[in-house]
Amino acid sequence: MTKTIANLIEARFGLPATAGHDTPAEGTLAALLERRVHRDYKPDAIPEDLIQTVLAAALSAPSKSDLQQVAILRVRDKAVHARIAGLIPSMPWIATAPAFFVFCGDNRRIRRIAELRGKPYPNDNLDQFMNAAVDAGIVLATFVIAAQAAGLGCCPISVIRDHVAEVSQLLELPPSVFPVAGLCVGFPASDGKLSMRLPMALTVHSDRYDDSRLEEEVAAYDKRRTAREPIAREKQRYAGEFGLIDAYGWSEDKARHYSHPERADFGEFIRGHGFKLA
Amino acid sequence: MTKTIANLIEARFGLPATAGHDTPAEGTLAALLERRVHRDYKPDAIPEDLIQTVLAAALSAPSKSDLQQVAILRVRDKAVHARIAGLIPSMPWIATAPAFFVFCGDNRRIRRIAELRGKPYPNDNLDQFMNAAVDAGIVLATFVIAAQAAGLGCCPISVIRDHVAEVSQLLELPPSVFPVAGLCVGFPASDGKLSMRLPMALTVHSDRYDDSRLEEEVAAYDKRRTAREPIAREKQRYAGEFGLIDAYGWSEDKARHYSHPERADFGEFIRGHGFKLA
Repeated sequence: MTKTIANLIEARFGLPATAGHDTPAEGTLAALLERRVHRDYKPDAIPEDLIQTVLAAALSAPSKSDLQQVAILRVRDKAVHARIAGLIPSMPWIATAPAFFVFCGDNRRIRRIAELRGKPYPNDNLDQFMNAAVDAGIVLATFVIAAQAAGLGCCPISVIRDHVAEVSQLLELPPSVFPVAGLCVGFPASDGKLSMRLPMALTVHSDRYDDSRLEEEVAAYDKRRTAREPIAREKQRYAGEFGLIDAYGWSEDKARHYSHPERADFGEFIRGHGFKLA
Repeated sequence: MTKTIANLIEARFGLPATAGHDTPAEGTLAALLERRVHRDYKPDAIPEDLIQTVLAAALSAPSKSDLQQVAILRVRDKAVHARIAGLIPSMPWIATAPAFFVFCGDNRRIRRIAELRGKPYPNDNLDQFMNAAVDAGIVLATFVIAAQAAGLGCCPISVIRDHVAEVSQLLELPPSVFPVAGLCVGFPASDGKLSMRLPMALTVHSDRYDDSRLEEEVAAYDKRRTAREPIAREKQRYAGEFGLIDAYGWSEDKARHYSHPERADFGEFIRGHGFKLA
């Protein structure tokens, strides 16, 4: 039987698709629905022309007011690559990825252009920071899709922000340029992992935000995810503090994840790195 | 002659592609390189199953720590649609778009989940805000690609943040849920517009950030853009203040754009809307 778009939607959400998706699973829509994270790479280097095409496709993404506030740091120096990997020993795929990139928000360029063109720049506010961060995220997301289309696999690494000062120093990021996420890239050595998504009942709202059914919907999602991909008992977070429990699903895992401060120093770094965030 | 990936890269950057891109322009990579913004739509409604497929594909995008901090507000009520359009009369395509969405960062869900699971949430910091904003941007970017693959055209509307309080009130966004950008969607009634991109000499850096050639590279980029698509004299911004000039290119336009405060009240809104931004 030919796979259909409906099959892919079911795989992604763990729920039957609504009517009308009986078209064959092919092309860009199928590729997006089938996106997987890849942490396991063949050692093969990526041909330079393929990297250039993927970069060009990624930079073709939309950009707020056509400002293009992104800087892609391509880590080619093996020593720099190893030092970043060394900061995050819990993710050995950073070291083994044949290619590693760091996607940065870049608010420096427009500030320098204002100076070059003799204009004031009275815009040191939160919106500016957010625009640069979102532009970088958009280019990262588009890079991932382009890479997949080129036969590559990726794993985004937002945890580089646990080491925002060291990473920024290593890559010589000047004020107003900050890391949003790293990205491991290589030819996949295995099938990768497809994450089941929250139901649209929670993520898509008609006209008015409504999460009145959050508790039931999250409980049902936990069950669907656990049925497909249970979290191993030894992976329960902060077990010393919260104990080992049987009903350990996505929501318990995420609640435990954020039960301890994460990147509490990020704001201070950004404020000292060229942003007032007014 | 068959169009090649090299042709698309040249069209996107206004510069010859590096060697090795002589593959035919087809598939997802070509679609990404050819992305255009569409502001001119046929009046036709979008079939519901197509919208569902595009939403499913968009929500298949990567998400920071699998937290899925996005809320997509689908504006179906014609009165709500008209009120948002009415806030931004300079962009009449908001009113004429057959479908309009607002992509929001959603940090509320994980906070509610922490409560439901009886866990503390000591994470009211800038990184949290940024993660939700970037997640929303990533889903928006993926939506645009999916929509294009489904034959639709899109125009992102970040300017809804000029009216962040009104839009949030209209859509009943609770604290910790905030608009990142709107999106007009419809079947294109014309070819749309392809933006020329800054050269990778400015946006891609090897190992260390280096913008020492910014002035020359921006000047050359201005020339390439102006040669393809000059900015009409009557579109020069703040002409009363800065005059009408002949060499009015991208950089002059962007410097003038940011010579006046933009969204200076956004930070205050966010700080009053559930975020400490520590």
